[in-house]
Parts: sequence; structure tokens; C-alpha cells
Amino acid sequence: MTPILYIGNRRFSSWSLRAWLVLTKAGIAFDDRLVPLNNTDTRKALSAISPGGTVPALHIESAVIWDSLSISEWAAEHVPGLWPSHEGKRARARAAVSMMHAGFLAIRENCPMDLGRAPSPIELSDATRTEIAAMQALWHDVKSVDGPWLFGDWSIADAFFTPVAARFQAYDIPLHAGAQAYCDTLLADEDYLLWHHAAQAETFPNPYENTL
Amino acid sequence: MTPILYIGNRRFSSWSLRAWLVLTKAGIAFDDRLVPLNNTDTRKALSAISPGGTVPALHIESAVIWDSLSISEWAAEHVPGLWPSHEGKRARARAAVSMMHAGFLAIRENCPMDLGRAPSPIELSDATRTEIAAMQALWHDVKSVDGPWLFGDWSIADAFFTPVAARFQAYDIPLHAGAQAYCDTLLADEDYLLWHHAAQAETFPNPYENTL
Repeated sequence: MTPILYIGNRRFSSWSLRAWLVLTKAGIAFDDRLVPLNNTDTRKALSAISPGGTVPALHIESAVIWDSLSISEWAAEHVPGLWPSHEGKRARARAAVSMMHAGFLAIRENCPMDLGRAPSPIELSDATRTEIAAMQALWHDVKSVDGPWLFGDWSIADAFFTPVAARFQAYDIPLHAGAQAYCDTLLADEDYLLWHHAAQAETFPNPYENTL
Repeated sequence: MTPILYIGNRRFSSWSLRAWLVLTKAGIAFDDRLVPLNNTDTRKALSAISPGGTVPALHIESAVIWDSLSISEWAAEHVPGLWPSHEGKRARARAAVSMMHAGFLAIRENCPMDLGRAPSPIELSDATRTEIAAMQALWHDVKSVDGPWLFGDWSIADAFFTPVAARFQAYDIPLHAGAQAYCDTLLADEDYLLWHHAAQAETFPNPYENTL
């Protein structure tokens, strides 16, 4: 069977974007199906397709993989080059991805991804400011000089930081030159732009309208 | 060089325990070095050995790997059998680990690991109760029938849930029979018991003393 990737609204679902980017860059054939978030029956719809009750969820022949990082590792088992080939670089890439996967909670809470938002600043909490500095420090520390992506060639790490770049843009957050250049690279990527374009065509209600 | 695993206090550092268990089960030769947590110079000590400023951090020849899941994936690249061999099982194991790695924040906050605590109940928040139910549901959904461990043979998933079992024991949390049996298996593991024994010999101050 062709794997099916269940995603949330493209405009808002940053974790869906990560998994979709990885599978797309991997060149793996898959179908995507959208589960509208923030509907009255969203929880029921999600629990029917995902043991974790979340999107993204990838249905393959032998399992449902209900987490963006696990989907990425599955893809990396099938397609070479999604992680850096150098052992040390690969370890650093995984650690950077793990930080994003488990952390940066203030940025995620304060600056939700909204690909339909015209860039404009919002009030940032102290915790968010600290994390924005930490994010840029992380990128600075690991950024490879041998290519435009974080570890030289495109890797899963770039998928994981693409939604961050979209958040920094949407909330007009000033960045150091290196971080800005990296974000520009992420947001100019042709696969990301396909997703971004599709997001604009979605007509679901904005779940953040009442909170901004 | 022999890899060096920097860990926090064995009594309290649940993420250190996870990485230590994986490397130990893998049979990888490594030295461990303890960075006392909650000292006035802890932050400085951590930033000197870990780009993420956290433990565990594994120093290998070509890199520092500063995250428990990344350390586990590094080990799995070197030693077969740390993830289930069946593709679907492996994907589910990774997804379960990812949930633990990124979530269950209420349990982590409300029920900190304390291997020196005599089992006794505490007040649990509603969020914690919900997560305890979700944890048991997760175990029930993925538990393999072909062995005592979560996916049959021991896997990285069992390392990730061992500290949860220790928390459930320390706070005397009533569990369904299947979940209790799984926790009993985790806490009777001989490698875990080595760690537990070493934890009892540590004489650092208890960082939770003022909050319990």
C-alpha cells in the first residue's frame, strides 16, 4: 500500500509540516489526508487514525507511526542522506532535532505557526525571548559552513526548524544575520513553498483568532 | 577514546538513567562522570560539557551528543537489537519513546523521580491523573505478548519508561494489573538495580525537599 500521511491544517500544524517535508524530500510516494483541527469532532477523528491522538500520523503497511520524529527515522531507514553521513554531524543533527522535538515550549506557545498571518510583532514573554536567543545560539553552534542548510546538505534537522523560521517571520522577530540567512533559506525552499501555497487555499477557521 | 557519559545525580536525573541504561544494555564500554545538579555552579559545569546545557551528554570521538534519545539512536547504530527488528514494531517503539521524550509533562512536573524516597502518595493534579491514565493506555496498546518487555525483547522503549515506573512506585500510584506487572519488570531489572544501588550512596542535597 502507499503510505498515508494524516496531517492537520497546513496553515497551523507545524508538526505535520515537518513530517511532510521529510517524506517529500525523501522522495517517498505517499498520500496525504487532512484532519481539520479545532472542530468539535477533531478529537474523535484523531483518535481513529492515531494511537497518540495527534497528527502527523503515517500509516504504513505494518504500523501507524504517530510522531514526527519517528516518521522521520522511518524515512531515514528507507532513504539514505536524510541525516548527515558523518557520524559526529549526524549525532549533532539528532540532538538538535531532539531539542526542538521536546523543547522550546515558550516559542511554541507564544508564537504559534500561522502561515496565513501578515508579519507583525506581538508581545513576547521573557521565556520566549530567552528561547529565541537559545535557538539562534544553537544554530550558530552547529551550523556547517559547507552548505546553506544546518548541516551542509539538507537534513531532517532543516525540516524540524522550518516551522520556527515561519514563526520568526510571522511575528517579525529580529534575528542575527546568520540566523536570518538560515531562515531565509528554509522559507525559500521549493517544497516548503508548495506547502505554504496549499495552506493559503485552506478555509478553516483560525483557532488563534481569539488569543492574539 | 572510550566514550564518556556525563550524568546528573543518579537519584534524581531520569534522563541520565535512560541514556545510561541504553549504553549499559548495549554493552558499549563507557565511563560515566557525575555533574552534581542544583549546585550554585551547576549551570557553568553543564555548559562546559554539553551544548544543550543538559545531562546526559555523551562525549564520543567526533562529537558531543547532548540528548538521551540521540544517544540512544547513536547506540542503536552501533549495536543491533536495541530497537525491535520488525519494522512496524520498531516504528511503534520509536513513537512511544518520542511521546515520552516530548510529553507527559504533568507527570514529570508533579512526580519527579526520587530514587531515595520511601513510597508514599502525594496530591496529584487533574493533568497528572489524565497522563497516568494515558501512560497506562499507551502501554496497553503497544505491549507485546511475546515477552516481559514492552516490545517483547528489551528495547530502548524500556529504558525510556523505567524512570516512569520508579515515579509510580515512589508516589504509590495505583495501576492496572498489566501496567503494574510491566513496572515490576522494569524495576527488577539487574542493570536498573545497579543504578538504584549507586543512587542510594549519593549524598547530595535533595532539590525537591522544599517542594514536597
